[in-house]
Amino acid sequence: MASLKTISFLFLVLILISDSSTALGKRIRDRNKPCKRLVVYFHDILFTGKNAQNSTSATVGAPAWGNKTALANPFRYGDLVAFDDPITLDKNLHSTPVGRAQGFYLYTSKSTLAAWFSVSFVFNSTEHKGSINFAGNEYVLQNTRDISITGGTGDFFMARGIASLMTDAYEKTDYFRLRVDIKLYECW
Amino acid sequence: MASLKTISFLFLVLILISDSSTALGKRIRDRNKPCKRLVVYFHDILFTGKNAQNSTSATVGAPAWGNKTALANPFRYGDLVAFDDPITLDKNLHSTPVGRAQGFYLYTSKSTLAAWFSVSFVFNSTEHKGSINFAGNEYVLQNTRDISITGGTGDFFMARGIASLMTDAYEKTDYFRLRVDIKLYECW
Amino acid sequence: MASLKTISFLFLVLILISDSSTALGKRIRDRNKPCKRLVVYFHDILFTGKNAQNSTSATVGAPAWGNKTALANPFRYGDLVAFDDPITLDKNLHSTPVGRAQGFYLYTSKSTLAAWFSVSFVFNSTEHKGSINFAGNEYVLQNTRDISITGGTGDFFMARGIASLMTDAYEKTDYFRLRVDIKLYECW
Repeated sequence: MASLKTISFLFLVLILISDSSTALGKRIRDRNKPCKRLVVYFHDILFTGKNAQNSTSATVGAPAWGNKTALANPFRYGDLVAFDDPITLDKNLHSTPVGRAQGFYLYTSKSTLAAWFSVSFVFNSTEHKGSINFAGNEYVLQNTRDISITGGTGDFFMARGIASLMTDAYEKTDYFRLRVDIKLYECW
Repeated sequence: MASLKTISFLFLVLILISDSSTALGKRIRDRNKPCKRLVVYFHDILFTGKNAQNSTSATVGAPAWGNKTALANPFRYGDLVAFDDPITLDKNLHSTPVGRAQGFYLYTSKSTLAAWFSVSFVFNSTEHKGSINFAGNEYVLQNTRDISITGGTGDFFMARGIASLMTDAYEKTDYFRLRVDIKLYECW
Repeated sequence: MASLKTISFLFLVLILISDSSTALGKRIRDRNKPCKRLVVYFHDILFTGKNAQNSTSATVGAPAWGNKTALANPFRYGDLVAFDDPITLDKNLHSTPVGRAQGFYLYTSKSTLAAWFSVSFVFNSTEHKGSINFAGNEYVLQNTRDISITGGTGDFFMARGIASLMTDAYEKTDYFRLRVDIKLYECW
């Protein structure tokens, strides 16, 4: 008899747990425990008119007051840049790439350096095959800033998460290296 | 003895529930009960050649038959506009913004006014810090239309949901105000 | 007495299952069993300077060395194309469309044909009303390639999944037909 009451109680607890966590769309998972984590770097060399050969990105859209071989003022606002950047595991531009970061960024602020990113990291190494897709706006001058991971394919099938970006190096207007801390919170 | 049968039965029910709702990817949550809801407005003043100072958006791409200070015909099809728009809690353009809507829209239809949006709402108020990322195509002339919320950061960490857009005001070609009903169905 | 131990054991099993599958963000669902599947085709006729009437897409951004009525070299890298393409259930361009594919693609590689897609499939047929939003980078010359489904509205409310693309036809530079195998793994 006691056991029947116990069952009923446990069952009620289970229903309450599942109701609060699933039925209302709230999840009580831990932000500090991604199901997968990966730190990589990518390197961007902007085409400035004379470096067609070794540049990895190019301005393809600009506001009326801008053009495609110089940076728009102020804050590059309105410049749209397509890129095909190497991804490396360390800071060295010349290390063997583990993949390519392919997509675009668009400078979106009139009052600071901010950039919208739509990009796919396409991995093609012995360790990882597949892609991770990113979307979000980031404030270039902040130390760390987060964008969304909206999906993935291959090894990263259906992934979701957060990427924390840090500017790891910056040279004049035509080279930057970003450190990308990839944290997946939904893994399949 | 009866209790063991009861346990088995309850256990079976649980497995069936979890199988239908989780294992097959179907969720039986309620569309009418977002886990978070927020209504805001954003204001867009298009650069038309002479309003560099107070405009909040600018055409950065256009089809061969268009240009960057006039609207392409028909239906602005092919115009790509970068924006840095203030977000307010009421309809007043001059209210203190609670954040910025930064991203771009692209007119995508030859036969009606339709716009693709890739945008981040970056909140920076006492109430909200963090960003919400949107993606989707919307038919400007419809009363209400929905786009996707694909992710978020900060207070909106890992959010997913739907944004319902309504054109709240429209003045000639260079000002519009959108009402955005943000409904999150996945909250963390 | 035995039944109480049994209950405890079953309860423990349940907690372990829910912990490993939900608490850590890992899902043990089956990649081979989408909750919804749909195969469609879309047709793209690029504007090349003289086909304004029947073209369904137009270049709206290009690198400094390109222009809007010819393809950039090499590999169209940097060309940004807005499109308003018909979606059909069969391979015939002239079949009654079940919707429109509206968005843009951007060629993202200096060394092969690769394209970033941001697009919404807007369905408007007796069978389907609503939209599916896609994002991702794809290698045009590969037989099959996957991009992400990041969200949906209407009949596809809150959907997530994978779209497998195949080039079904290709004529010179101004027509292609893509087969899109839409596989949703999160349905509401």
